[in-house]
Amino acid sequence: MQAPAGDRAAAVAGVLARCRELVRPAVVEAVGQLHPWTGEMAAYALGWSDTAGTPDPGGSEGKGVRQALAVLGAEAVGADGGAGVAGAVAVELVHTFSLLHDDIMDGDGLRRQRPAVWKAYGTGPAVLAGDALLALAVQRLAEAPGPWSAVAVRHLSGTLSTLVWGQAEDVRFERLPWSGPGAVGPEQYRSMAEGKTGALLGCAIALGAVLGGAQAGTVAVLERAGRHLGVAFQAVDDLLGIWGDPAVTGKPVHGDLRRRKKTYPVLAALAGGGPAARELAVLLESPGPLDGAAAARAAVLVEEAGGRSATRKEARRHLDAARHALREASLTPAAGADLDALFTYLLDRSW
Amino acid sequence: MQAPAGDRAAAVAGVLARCRELVRPAVVEAVGQLHPWTGEMAAYALGWSDTAGTPDPGGSEGKGVRQALAVLGAEAVGADGGAGVAGAVAVELVHTFSLLHDDIMDGDGLRRQRPAVWKAYGTGPAVLAGDALLALAVQRLAEAPGPWSAVAVRHLSGTLSTLVWGQAEDVRFERLPWSGPGAVGPEQYRSMAEGKTGALLGCAIALGAVLGGAQAGTVAVLERAGRHLGVAFQAVDDLLGIWGDPAVTGKPVHGDLRRRKKTYPVLAALAGGGPAARELAVLLESPGPLDGAAAARAAVLVEEAGGRSATRKEARRHLDAARHALREASLTPAAGADLDALFTYLLDRSW
Repeated sequence: MQAPAGDRAAAVAGVLARCRELVRPAVVEAVGQLHPWTGEMAAYALGWSDTAGTPDPGGSEGKGVRQALAVLGAEAVGADGGAGVAGAVAVELVHTFSLLHDDIMDGDGLRRQRPAVWKAYGTGPAVLAGDALLALAVQRLAEAPGPWSAVAVRHLSGTLSTLVWGQAEDVRFERLPWSGPGAVGPEQYRSMAEGKTGALLGCAIALGAVLGGAQAGTVAVLERAGRHLGVAFQAVDDLLGIWGDPAVTGKPVHGDLRRRKKTYPVLAALAGGGPAARELAVLLESPGPLDGAAAARAAVLVEEAGGRSATRKEARRHLDAARHALREASLTPAAGADLDALFTYLLDRSW
Repeated sequence: MQAPAGDRAAAVAGVLARCRELVRPAVVEAVGQLHPWTGEMAAYALGWSDTAGTPDPGGSEGKGVRQALAVLGAEAVGADGGAGVAGAVAVELVHTFSLLHDDIMDGDGLRRQRPAVWKAYGTGPAVLAGDALLALAVQRLAEAPGPWSAVAVRHLSGTLSTLVWGQAEDVRFERLPWSGPGAVGPEQYRSMAEGKTGALLGCAIALGAVLGGAQAGTVAVLERAGRHLGVAFQAVDDLLGIWGDPAVTGKPVHGDLRRRKKTYPVLAALAGGGPAARELAVLLESPGPLDGAAAARAAVLVEEAGGRSATRKEARRHLDAARHALREASLTPAAGADLDALFTYLLDRSW
């Protein structure tokens, strides 16, 4: 029997807070080793301070999902959560690096309702701060004590390559046509999402498990769970980018359609064929910006052509696969339950 | 007895060619694993092809100093040069990454007489290609077979942090005043150069030695040799940036002065005090660009204030320290001689 959604949210909030408390001092200590200038940008990017370097208690820290996955990954294989901290630090730093550089590439001026680092500090400095975070992530994991650091670094470095590969696909997709033989299909989009979003979530749990001393087989199953979670998470993000409540998402209504972003719902709709798909393609291929009315029409067409329901199915399928993988690994009950609750909660947004 | 300069140059060219031949297939293979788009940018940055992806036989490959240092590092500790190849690949990829990102930060539109990657492909793509190269470098070294890869990755990751730290200092210096209490001193500049240039040269030899199975003490001495080499190399570069023959350097006469670059000769001149230093500070602090006559006057003043001779001494001192370190390590005679010849040759440009 599942707990009611409200209780589950409170329980997950407790788990995230507990993991954050465990990991935070190590992240602070690591960032303190940076050059003061890149350290200032890192603190801003992490939501710890404003552009003047002043602590920002009402700041914009992320949810800390990746660090929690690393801690729970260690606990799930029977180790103390502290064993996963070095992995948690690495994935939080890599995540921050990727946000910094992706915002430059995508030209996104806002991140968590504040100016992106490149907007606040300039493009060159933002490139530098990202590089510093990436180098620090690898260094900290490589220097972590214990017998598992080399295996952990191998995992992280493979993930880095996959992450950058996913970002390259994402940027490339923006240049491809909406229809015809060169168009992006939903399967290509899923690979991209698995690289760009899934790889680091999978790596987070895997690092926790590796540092907790798990066997390679258990690590592989947990990594797979995290990757499915990432694909599901991206699908939900895509739904929210079109139909999400602006008051909740902080993003404009039909925002992804106005920006002509190639997301799963749109690509699934176009791939389905039929009159709604054809009208949608014409709309998306029209020159000039998509205004509010056109974006609203596009949203209706995506839904009519089956893109919304296909994306819901996609999210559900990958969440199920992720939870199935969790059950497949024999995990300690408490951490296994925490992971399952966290997985479910992350997808439990209005879609 | 030292060989005449011409013979030495020919011998060093032979060493560089031999190392390149050994390492090249592994770099090609590694770059072939990249996403096709980042791979294309990497091939361009490495001087293998033009922007259309067409092989560029008259291309602009670098000298390949870092890869040679890694191969010679392995040979110098008694291993086969092939043992150093994984390290050579890593440092060549990291070097290419750093050129790509530094050119963005410094706004340098030209690199080896061709448009820099960010000029040719755009800033966002250049950021991405740099990230891909960095990730690949770490991944390849982390996945290298043999018992030493973990130690090697620890070396490389520490170097990455130091490299980015040096770049942060370099960018920060550009914003500091020429005179007064906040001015940059020659010692600060030397630390920056050790980070930005020395760290990767030291890492290159160290990786070769580590992968060749050397003791930690030998690795440390060789790393120190490479770091001194880097500081000396930067000092010579600074001399050439002011007094180098444009026909040889491919850069405009007094180029670094026109661009008001904070380099060792200028900082040493300003630190010396006296009338020439004071006139130089006034000139550099004047608003507007430095035209040809002003830059020529600045060059005279740097020399009068002792900046040129101080920089020559700096280069000489660090070259001596580097060669001394080589002698301190007990190296196999042939590779030790190759390293010594390479060190000397690198500093043996007209200054």
